[in-house]
Amino acid sequence: MHPVDFLTPRAMTTPDRPALVWGNRTLTYGALKTWARALEAQLARAGVTAGSRVAALLPKSPAAVAAIHAVAHLGAVLVPLNLRLTPEEMRAQIARSGATHVLATPSTAERAHAVVEERRVTAIASEELGIAEDPVPLPSPFAIRNSPFAILFTSGTTGAPKAAVLTAANFYHSAVASVFRLGVLPDDRWLLTLPLYHVGGLSILFRSALYGIAVVLLENVEASFDPRWLYETLRRRHVTLVSLVPTMLHRLLEAVPEPPPPSLRLVLLGGAAASPELLQRALARGYPVATTYGLTEATSQVATATPPEVRRKPGSVGRPLLHTRVRVVDGQGRTLPPGEVGEILVSGPTVFSGYDGDPRATRAALQDGWLHTGDLGYLDAEGDLWVVNRRSDLIVTGGENVYPAEVEAVLRQHPAVAEACVVGLDDAEWGQRVAAAVVLKPHADVTPQMLEDFCRQRLAGYKVPRRIRILPDLPRTASGKVQRPLVRERLQTEAKP
Amino acid sequence: MHPVDFLTPRAMTTPDRPALVWGNRTLTYGALKTWARALEAQLARAGVTAGSRVAALLPKSPAAVAAIHAVAHLGAVLVPLNLRLTPEEMRAQIARSGATHVLATPSTAERAHAVVEERRVTAIASEELGIAEDPVPLPSPFAIRNSPFAILFTSGTTGAPKAAVLTAANFYHSAVASVFRLGVLPDDRWLLTLPLYHVGGLSILFRSALYGIAVVLLENVEASFDPRWLYETLRRRHVTLVSLVPTMLHRLLEAVPEPPPPSLRLVLLGGAAASPELLQRALARGYPVATTYGLTEATSQVATATPPEVRRKPGSVGRPLLHTRVRVVDGQGRTLPPGEVGEILVSGPTVFSGYDGDPRATRAALQDGWLHTGDLGYLDAEGDLWVVNRRSDLIVTGGENVYPAEVEAVLRQHPAVAEACVVGLDDAEWGQRVAAAVVLKPHADVTPQMLEDFCRQRLAGYKVPRRIRILPDLPRTASGKVQRPLVRERLQTEAKP
Repeated sequence: MHPVDFLTPRAMTTPDRPALVWGNRTLTYGALKTWARALEAQLARAGVTAGSRVAALLPKSPAAVAAIHAVAHLGAVLVPLNLRLTPEEMRAQIARSGATHVLATPSTAERAHAVVEERRVTAIASEELGIAEDPVPLPSPFAIRNSPFAILFTSGTTGAPKAAVLTAANFYHSAVASVFRLGVLPDDRWLLTLPLYHVGGLSILFRSALYGIAVVLLENVEASFDPRWLYETLRRRHVTLVSLVPTMLHRLLEAVPEPPPPSLRLVLLGGAAASPELLQRALARGYPVATTYGLTEATSQVATATPPEVRRKPGSVGRPLLHTRVRVVDGQGRTLPPGEVGEILVSGPTVFSGYDGDPRATRAALQDGWLHTGDLGYLDAEGDLWVVNRRSDLIVTGGENVYPAEVEAVLRQHPAVAEACVVGLDDAEWGQRVAAAVVLKPHADVTPQMLEDFCRQRLAGYKVPRRIRILPDLPRTASGKVQRPLVRERLQTEAKP
Repeated sequence: MHPVDFLTPRAMTTPDRPALVWGNRTLTYGALKTWARALEAQLARAGVTAGSRVAALLPKSPAAVAAIHAVAHLGAVLVPLNLRLTPEEMRAQIARSGATHVLATPSTAERAHAVVEERRVTAIASEELGIAEDPVPLPSPFAIRNSPFAILFTSGTTGAPKAAVLTAANFYHSAVASVFRLGVLPDDRWLLTLPLYHVGGLSILFRSALYGIAVVLLENVEASFDPRWLYETLRRRHVTLVSLVPTMLHRLLEAVPEPPPPSLRLVLLGGAAASPELLQRALARGYPVATTYGLTEATSQVATATPPEVRRKPGSVGRPLLHTRVRVVDGQGRTLPPGEVGEILVSGPTVFSGYDGDPRATRAALQDGWLHTGDLGYLDAEGDLWVVNRRSDLIVTGGENVYPAEVEAVLRQHPAVAEACVVGLDDAEWGQRVAAAVVLKPHADVTPQMLEDFCRQRLAGYKVPRRIRILPDLPRTASGKVQRPLVRERLQTEAKP
């Protein structure tokens, strides 16, 4: 039996529709499939087979899109890696995922070579490849696979990133539920701004193939985020749909005073809580914002408020998607009445199947079919979800999740550090910024800058504390637990200009 | 385990969105569910349980919509009956379906009582009912049921109507594939013009519940089709989507010279082949026509051309929907190259599971997972489907299918008739009209009007031949087979003014 990917049936059905738009170029679904087949042959020659795990260092480039579909069509499992990881973090995740191969593009090949032996790296060309294909075969009978399709690393609360296993069925049901909330039109074009190693970016590729709509790439693919480029791409490429994290929207509003281009039908805003001020500003400027709450373990969207709902109730993330169920429970697992804050639980066809090779973490996250998100929130009387706080101590900076435990573990590795407490400080541009309070060992001598440098060598840049404060001790509860909220309050106050 | 219907998850998800619009009234999904629950209680009191088969005489009324969802939520199987059947035909279909109960509205209750004992009839009120509900329960976990959901009668080529069994999964995948071709927007409104006993009408209810959009009913629900009412409803109720058969579109263009209301996004034209002239006229008038080929056994749409595709290639029905596969084969089952006409075969998740209680017909229709439609057509070099002829001798008049064999069998029951050949004559308004050539027994004395009256007592009105010609004999092949095309040609020529 041939595995079912999302590109093949689409290319059979509407080969002439645009699949990928970047700059002045447009690639049809037929041409994208041809390119994917060429890369599939290259991967097969390198020894990738059905069930292989393929780690991937993929920027948001056309070749990366073709490669992702090639991995799926082979029946291999994609393990996209965060491009901002340090070599050490990267090496650890490749080992953890059991990946036998590493996929890279010209711009990431060097980094790949730095972390694994050369024979395990498959470097793909950035240019479109063709391949002579056999006469078009009929696509395989339709089936929604429940076997692993992609493994995405999420920062775990324990500090060690966990490997969430998502199936083709998860992505399929996510795409269907999303369209049943947000709608789609045959000529829609979705601008890819989020990284392909984030569920919010990766799922756009699969969603678009199912819908038969085009993915638009930013024209400065390899460069860092630039709000003016974002606006220009929206305008020039007649983009109708775009996913943004609040930091991106904030920067867009700051950098570009014009109203949104008329083609824009929807801004899907997620990845972190959006402040009411940001929402009001965006709505006033005419941006059709839909707020969403989602997480990797639920294949992105759990609940989404459409633009009219955001206007009526700014701050809510709306109702759960069709076929997704949400409960809010107290510490004993009892369902709470409307308005009361508790942990958000999620069940439904988009909930992941567990953490790879980590039955303990899986058992903690999935209980009786319910995903325990660790996020706090409440359902109001109308059934709309409000997210009060991401997992109590989670920091979301520019759409990236940072778990204090991971950063604290690194700080404690420094020979001068006795204790560390990492918190997120409010920040208009980034949502939150990472900060740390540190207690030194007796007679130790170290500056905050030295500690920051120490972190920078061991952690992806976005995880490094931007502010480190050395304190004589940390505030603790009677039982000896660090009072994180007090640390946060103190650092926040000091951070004020 | 509670069966999954389509209304319940939708009502849980967006209870406040409009579900049903008729006249000035709008019913939300929450209110429609409450109504459906009240009817469900009534059905349960009447003895309907999960698995029961419920024959239904339902006009396109609000109560009928609620009742259909009630039957689904009970886990019972809906058997909607053509309202134009004679009492005799109706009695036969109720017996064939094994229905224990008959569901009727105030306007159809009398007809129901005429064909079955009173205790088997459940007459529902036309007024909205409420019911005290328990505190809102969480919807059941998502599952796509593969068990019977509805049984629809289709005219069989043998003359005896066959009972096609459709599952909830069939309707689900049809709805998803349709949206992946035609798109949907959260504020769409679908006007129900087709009968609820046709797959094209029934599927609109399930599709709309999945999408969360409103179904609009014609304001003169119980009256016969009136193109001016159609136009007025489109305009006043801001309808965006409508399914029409060619006869309806023809009459709309004749009766209303104005361009379509601006809200109208799509006219899904199916049920019979549309003439290129009709398409050109509709496009010229500004109607966004999408042509579709579908059949009951594939839960409606198989292939659909979007308006730009219709403009480019009028007459084609476009590519198969995503995950639907189409082959065109010769008499030996060999796949034909592009451009060659053969039988259209269909496979995919919308293909039905067989004819109820008729393993022979099921085996003939479903071979190796392929539905043998009996319809003739070809795929062009681009993969677009062209339907050349509905099952060679099938007559489609005003969107209703008429099988000559069924009408011929009735004619032959008349004591004066020796032989009969029923054909369809071209007709600008109806697409085709039923006509018959009849050979009388020696010394028999009967007029065409007497034969027509004889048919009218035994057949639904649309099946009755509008033109009956008495001939001394029928043209036959050397092997003795009636040459239907020659009969058709002769009657067509005589019919010309």
